[in-house]
Amino acid sequence: MKTYDLKFDLRDARNLSLVMDFYELTMSQVYFNEGRQDQVVTFDYFYRKNPDNGGFAIFAGLEELIGYIQNLHFNEEDIFYLQSLGRFDEKFLDYLRHFIFTGNVYAVKEGTVVFPNEPIIRVEAPIIEAQLIETALLLCCNHQSLIATKANRVVRASKGRSVLEFGARRAHNFDAANYGARAAYIGGVFGTSNTKAGQMFHMPVSGTMAHSFIQSYPSEYEAFVAYAKHFPKETSLLLDTYDTLNSGLLNAIRVHKEVLLPQGNYLQSVRIDSGDIAYLSKRIRERLDAEGMQDTKIIASNSFDEYIIKSLIDQGAKIDVFGVGENLICSKSSPVFGGVYKLSSIKEEDGSYTPKIKVSDNAIKLTNPGKKELYRVYCLKNGKALADLLTLSHEVLNEEEDLVIYHPQDVWKFKTIEKGTYRLERLLVPIIEHGNLVYDCPSLEDIRKHANASRETMWDEILRFEYPQEYYVDLSKELLDLKLSLLESVRKK
Amino acid sequence: MKTYDLKFDLRDARNLSLVMDFYELTMSQVYFNEGRQDQVVTFDYFYRKNPDNGGFAIFAGLEELIGYIQNLHFNEEDIFYLQSLGRFDEKFLDYLRHFIFTGNVYAVKEGTVVFPNEPIIRVEAPIIEAQLIETALLLCCNHQSLIATKANRVVRASKGRSVLEFGARRAHNFDAANYGARAAYIGGVFGTSNTKAGQMFHMPVSGTMAHSFIQSYPSEYEAFVAYAKHFPKETSLLLDTYDTLNSGLLNAIRVHKEVLLPQGNYLQSVRIDSGDIAYLSKRIRERLDAEGMQDTKIIASNSFDEYIIKSLIDQGAKIDVFGVGENLICSKSSPVFGGVYKLSSIKEEDGSYTPKIKVSDNAIKLTNPGKKELYRVYCLKNGKALADLLTLSHEVLNEEEDLVIYHPQDVWKFKTIEKGTYRLERLLVPIIEHGNLVYDCPSLEDIRKHANASRETMWDEILRFEYPQEYYVDLSKELLDLKLSLLESVRKK
Repeated sequence: MKTYDLKFDLRDARNLSLVMDFYELTMSQVYFNEGRQDQVVTFDYFYRKNPDNGGFAIFAGLEELIGYIQNLHFNEEDIFYLQSLGRFDEKFLDYLRHFIFTGNVYAVKEGTVVFPNEPIIRVEAPIIEAQLIETALLLCCNHQSLIATKANRVVRASKGRSVLEFGARRAHNFDAANYGARAAYIGGVFGTSNTKAGQMFHMPVSGTMAHSFIQSYPSEYEAFVAYAKHFPKETSLLLDTYDTLNSGLLNAIRVHKEVLLPQGNYLQSVRIDSGDIAYLSKRIRERLDAEGMQDTKIIASNSFDEYIIKSLIDQGAKIDVFGVGENLICSKSSPVFGGVYKLSSIKEEDGSYTPKIKVSDNAIKLTNPGKKELYRVYCLKNGKALADLLTLSHEVLNEEEDLVIYHPQDVWKFKTIEKGTYRLERLLVPIIEHGNLVYDCPSLEDIRKHANASRETMWDEILRFEYPQEYYVDLSKELLDLKLSLLESVRKK
Repeated sequence: MKTYDLKFDLRDARNLSLVMDFYELTMSQVYFNEGRQDQVVTFDYFYRKNPDNGGFAIFAGLEELIGYIQNLHFNEEDIFYLQSLGRFDEKFLDYLRHFIFTGNVYAVKEGTVVFPNEPIIRVEAPIIEAQLIETALLLCCNHQSLIATKANRVVRASKGRSVLEFGARRAHNFDAANYGARAAYIGGVFGTSNTKAGQMFHMPVSGTMAHSFIQSYPSEYEAFVAYAKHFPKETSLLLDTYDTLNSGLLNAIRVHKEVLLPQGNYLQSVRIDSGDIAYLSKRIRERLDAEGMQDTKIIASNSFDEYIIKSLIDQGAKIDVFGVGENLICSKSSPVFGGVYKLSSIKEEDGSYTPKIKVSDNAIKLTNPGKKELYRVYCLKNGKALADLLTLSHEVLNEEEDLVIYHPQDVWKFKTIEKGTYRLERLLVPIIEHGNLVYDCPSLEDIRKHANASRETMWDEILRFEYPQEYYVDLSKELLDLKLSLLESVRKK
């Protein structure tokens, strides 16, 4: 665990505070003018649907969000800009000048497996503060959770083979390349081609040569020799510039034997980037093995995603490392993570919380009201996760008693988990309290390990790609009753 | 036209130089060690397929790329990081310490309508320099061209109604929110909800209130009154928190009559964000008109894209402004712009350029060899674009002669355009020469106007959404002959 003050993190040198939907500011001015700036509220961050029709998501983006919140301020340039719009009062702008975040943030740890409709982040803060962080909270967590989840799908499809993230050139701009690589690492990729991500996040970088390198030499063989000469310990040769089997492969074997072996080195790997990858990889493996080059690995890249990788493995392709580009970094088949941020309660002067619900004709769009906690229920016998449970924050759970959990929409469905067979984990941990960072941000390595461990607690039926079992995200009786009574009172109005 | 030195632009305060695929650096070390650092090459940026099966794309991202190139340098922190990887020689690192870009960049103007397989950017530079800018060039231009193109589709589907970009919360991180909003503006949206984009790019921002604002008041009416009181000139009320027609609309009318009108103000707009938008908008319009509120606009938002907007208009929906979020900012239906960067020639010591071609079994993946120019051929009679033409740079075209252009793959197809019926525009203009910015970056407003003007020169058949006509991107006889002869010689090898 490393701890550092994100306020001095170089990554945050730029001023991103105004990356907020304009309505956050207009609403805030109304709250301010009405004297409501000290009114405390709670908001929940949650999402409604797993990407790619999968069974879960991996939460990521928390550290970036912490950086945003810790740095959130309005400098004179920002104030000047807001002034220029002619919509804001001087008193409110003066309030913004001195703005700092003073609220509380509770969140699931980065890397944790999460499910639809459960609070992944709970913000408790004066209403303006809670509102002003909305856009950045959504943006950081939606983006990184999307990519971590996608990367994990690709990694699982690869069944133990390494996956490298190669997508920077197709990412949705610089941050998407950098933070996308970070999220992909949380999801399980082995490294990235993006050098900046390596520098920023201390994750492995890799890469060797492009077709242009080979084309820039009079012959493929000369290009290979030049590379092997200058990187004798890390030679990886790209085979498909002219003709993979009849030129690239033969030249690579020749370089191995004529240049590398005599100096005690070894051709580390060959890479193919086009053609019928299943067929080519098998022919390459046969030939390399026949030449005694069993330790030379085969890297393949060519618009892969989890489905193509699964198909290649099913076909018996001989690939040791998959390089995955645009389909991962843009999560092409499912490019939007639809996380939302909804008001759940308002704190009254007596310290109690008045629950709020957002109604909708669509049952799945109803929110869960009140200030809540999130628990994961594990089976004591095998350590697997049985269900997640939402309760109101004041509820006290006792592992010495049977646990009864209720379906959030189908109110006749409930489930009893017998005492002595389960344990509970409280998933929302304190991140920021009274504006101060109280959380030791884990290293990226530790987040990655946590993601893997969290996934290990899930049943295979949740993890499968096609029609996964829907994981239980259930409610306590008290929360269910509250939800139903609020719905009734809204309908009566 | 505004001109400024991007080196001092605040946007570039952060150090993005290392956002490059690691192989750019390993290749560069080989070039350096082999004494090839002064060898000049040309690279082309082009793409192969229009997003969303459309008929064209809108090029964007150039200004951001200029910023990257102008700021490209390796500071001690970068050198230290590269050193730590144990792959680079001190001499090469010392070269990087003093690195600046000294080459030439020619590009199509931002906002121009472009087509597959034509060079949108041509880089002429010493080989290391040309290589080190590859990743950022692709990333900036792929991202912004994707979003500008998508936004333009949405804007065209809206048939003259305003479109607002509302997607920051679902963007792929901060840059995607900011530069995505910029690109959307080039594509024709009227403004953005992202305050930072407004500040950075001087584009209009807008936004009013969220559901949470209304929920935070004891009643919808009180929330509306509070907003109207503090923004009497810009009141826009969100109708669908409880019940659009039976509550939101009635309260909005009441606030208009009881609060706004008596003070000489007017309810600017109402917004709906859920439910059957076609039906609701018609009922709202009827009622507003019946109340004499013809000038109150209807804003709608709800996971729109060009297809849903077209359908809404076909159904007679009464919407004045479309707010478009994730489907625009992530280009959800087509989230990858597959631009590539390919070596086209190597400059010899005598000053001539040896053309290079990248072969492939797939005809569409063959590159066009040589240092090239790109022309747009316009019909003199109606000003419409007839075709684009690629030539070798040394070719001289004469508008006083018939123009004969050749299909790039189907070599038996050619077309003669008679002298006196056409004019030529050279599309690649000098941006950077000998490392110096020689281009006056237009204002964003001017880029947006140029995008619109460029699109106006296109036939409707190119612009249509379903099965657009394929625009001619043809070759000169000399370029075609060169391509065929290079292919033959590669095959012979």
